[in-house]
Amino acid sequence: MTQEKMQVDKHIFQRFDEELTALLDRLLEMGGLVEKQVADAVRALIEGDTELASAVLANEEQVDDLDVEIDQMCVRLIAIRQPTASDLRLVLGISKSVLDLERIGDEANKIAKLTLQLAEQMDAPIEIGYVSVRRLGQKVNDMLKSVLDAYGNFDAEATVGIARNDDQLDEEYQNSTGELIAHMKEHSSSIASLLNIVWALRALERIGDHVENLAEHLIYTVKGIDVRHHNLAEIQHQIDRK
Amino acid sequence: MTQEKMQVDKHIFQRFDEELTALLDRLLEMGGLVEKQVADAVRALIEGDTELASAVLANEEQVDDLDVEIDQMCVRLIAIRQPTASDLRLVLGISKSVLDLERIGDEANKIAKLTLQLAEQMDAPIEIGYVSVRRLGQKVNDMLKSVLDAYGNFDAEATVGIARNDDQLDEEYQNSTGELIAHMKEHSSSIASLLNIVWALRALERIGDHVENLAEHLIYTVKGIDVRHHNLAEIQHQIDRK
Repeated sequence: MTQEKMQVDKHIFQRFDEELTALLDRLLEMGGLVEKQVADAVRALIEGDTELASAVLANEEQVDDLDVEIDQMCVRLIAIRQPTASDLRLVLGISKSVLDLERIGDEANKIAKLTLQLAEQMDAPIEIGYVSVRRLGQKVNDMLKSVLDAYGNFDAEATVGIARNDDQLDEEYQNSTGELIAHMKEHSSSIASLLNIVWALRALERIGDHVENLAEHLIYTVKGIDVRHHNLAEIQHQIDRK
Repeated sequence: MTQEKMQVDKHIFQRFDEELTALLDRLLEMGGLVEKQVADAVRALIEGDTELASAVLANEEQVDDLDVEIDQMCVRLIAIRQPTASDLRLVLGISKSVLDLERIGDEANKIAKLTLQLAEQMDAPIEIGYVSVRRLGQKVNDMLKSVLDAYGNFDAEATVGIARNDDQLDEEYQNSTGELIAHMKEHSSSIASLLNIVWALRALERIGDHVENLAEHLIYTVKGIDVRHHNLAEIQHQIDRK
């Protein structure tokens, strides 16, 4: 290989690495934005802050723009650079992660809309509902932060704990919903607003599912294991064998 | 180009086309399976058929297997054949469609689980709920059938009507849920089973969203337009301009 040819190759690979890094940076930027949307939506609901809820809805466009932009970056990268093996896995993993981040953004929007509905409902809100939203909201935000940190550090091991957290979240969601249903039976005039709290809890539970998907995409990207439809013990076993 | 070289190239392209066709066939197979899962889950709920509900849950594994298999086919195709332009769009579009089909399968499972819960609940079911499930279930199944036919014929135009149907579905979902909430206030002893009907309606509404996603993936695949986050009029305008 001539000196000149080697220079050109090196240049191509450097540019490819730069593009991959730029892609991951954009994903983390989108992640940070979505994380803020979730935190703001939960705070808006708990504090009955309709102004903050409207701000969350107004930011939707920004999330959507990033979604389309990152997706186009992925397609361009595959078409032009034709990555193979781990680089291809990275691009495809990011392409799927974008979908989950976008849907987390959708769930944050739903919570913001519920906040506006709750503000218009005349029946007295019941404290127990807000306590559950605060608790599940905190948990979901911690999970989302962890998974984004794991992406930033490219650390697949860090995500095993996240899947375990999602199981706890599902259990808390079931318990909280059960409590609220019991309350409905005794306070039938508050059913509409209690149901809105249930919808908000369900949105949080779904965000937890998307965080788990994000963790799976990262494991796939880093380790090349497809972990969907396996339980935690199997995943741990597969990671240990790598 | 020598005669021999041309033969080899032709052979390579033929194999690539065969692989793309096989990929699309697998997607349609998965679509057919998921369509049956949704129809069976809705019928199980309406008829209180716990045996059929259990059969839906047992078939989940088959859907999951196809999901992983098609996804691996997509990755292999990109890595080995390095498709560009419309072929790459097709593979990436299929890779995203698989995610939506898998999630439609998840929603069918939820409806099956709700059927089992409803069978254990002692409070009398309310007819109005079943009427709504039947109506929305029929609509969702028609939409799913249409979008799979559109995939089979590679007909992006056929999907514009689907997005319109999803708007109608959302409206019917809102009305039906409103009716059920009104009933809850008057029949507080039936709240738990009425809520299970509401969850089933919500699962159907989400399936409608996934059908709309499938339509968007197909438009992207065929036309190269990213139609997410645009309204119907804009999409029609963009298709007309192509």
